[in-house]
Amino acid sequence: MRLLIVSTSSIHGKPYLSYLKEEVSSFFKGKNILFIPYARPGGITWDEYTEKATERFTEWGYTMRGIHTFENHTEALNWAEGVFTGGGNTFVLVKTLYDLGVMADLKSAVEDGLPYMGSSAGSNLTGLTVRTTNDMPIVYPPSFDALGLVPFNINPHYLDPDPSSTHMGETRETRINEFHHFNEQPVVGLREGSWLRREGDKLELKGELTARLFRKGVAAIERAPGDWSDLL
Amino acid sequence: MRLLIVSTSSIHGKPYLSYLKEEVSSFFKGKNILFIPYARPGGITWDEYTEKATERFTEWGYTMRGIHTFENHTEALNWAEGVFTGGGNTFVLVKTLYDLGVMADLKSAVEDGLPYMGSSAGSNLTGLTVRTTNDMPIVYPPSFDALGLVPFNINPHYLDPDPSSTHMGETRETRINEFHHFNEQPVVGLREGSWLRREGDKLELKGELTARLFRKGVAAIERAPGDWSDLL
Repeated sequence: MRLLIVSTSSIHGKPYLSYLKEEVSSFFKGKNILFIPYARPGGITWDEYTEKATERFTEWGYTMRGIHTFENHTEALNWAEGVFTGGGNTFVLVKTLYDLGVMADLKSAVEDGLPYMGSSAGSNLTGLTVRTTNDMPIVYPPSFDALGLVPFNINPHYLDPDPSSTHMGETRETRINEFHHFNEQPVVGLREGSWLRREGDKLELKGELTARLFRKGVAAIERAPGDWSDLL
Repeated sequence: MRLLIVSTSSIHGKPYLSYLKEEVSSFFKGKNILFIPYARPGGITWDEYTEKATERFTEWGYTMRGIHTFENHTEALNWAEGVFTGGGNTFVLVKTLYDLGVMADLKSAVEDGLPYMGSSAGSNLTGLTVRTTNDMPIVYPPSFDALGLVPFNINPHYLDPDPSSTHMGETRETRINEFHHFNEQPVVGLREGSWLRREGDKLELKGELTARLFRKGVAAIERAPGDWSDLL
């Protein structure tokens, strides 16, 4: 299985996806990249979102098409030599994938070797469930189960507590600790600028930052970029 | 119907609920207050959470009992002269209320005149749905429908965008605007230190701060404390 699990599509002050150019070039070896626009950031349409991603991927020498432009998703998955699921609202993404019957077939295709890249909501999708998303539950999906391409959950856009804050809302760490009162799997808190790359049995944390690993019943720890294959 | 819809149970630097002493005293006229501890902040037990709330309410001269200490919830609602639902995780709260069959009976009791106070997750519960919660979806409830005691949704702990932030996660306003791509009802963004009080057909914003009113298709506006009855 080949995965690129990216915390955020954009780094502050840089154009959309631009900081990932080299990584994407070494990850997607075929030209035909399928875009899944269902997370609809800011409520933009599937067409508008596909256009935005296509602009960048075309610049990088790929041919990109939105999954909704095919007769059906089977045709789309047959055409694709890689898949990219963009960020936005995780609940909208998951509900749409279930409602259109795409979830199981997408999972099979990636398990059979189709390279999968996700950012933000698209990264939540690679985990066991989307129960560690930061998003607002603006629609009700038929399940919180995700693709389960890794045996843990992702928390993208991971944020450290702000010691100067007077806000009483829960910190991210508190929320993930609450998750572990009801769920067993580890959670990887991926900061903006970090990503995980899976190549078969090998898992690597990339970017310049550490990531935060939460396991049930033990204190969270920081782990450096490099080999994280023990999580698989 | 009588409601007290509070953004947060604690203001930074002040003891639990203390800033609400006068408001609560004028709101709950009977002595027997039922506590609903199901939101379990930080994963604490029903008993621990009930103990925390009971300490404050006892100090204020009330008799408090947790809903889980009764033979069944019918007996609990019959005993109660007021209900307080504490904050924590909205998904855990809603799932528990549905799983235990409490939701419909609680709604009927409040509609029949039982005074209801909620803070944070307990305030989300008064809206039409919990689709504007800030919480992490750590469990999967059978529905996102809430008590529907007001014809809008609540967003507690409302936070203004931080202009100095370089974080790429969505602002609260962006999230609520995304909500309006898929939902019709207004959303009241209640800042910490604000609360709504409903007395029959009268709705009032209380505290010292403005609140932010989001309606589908129009720009959000700030509205001052005072009469908000037009929202009912």
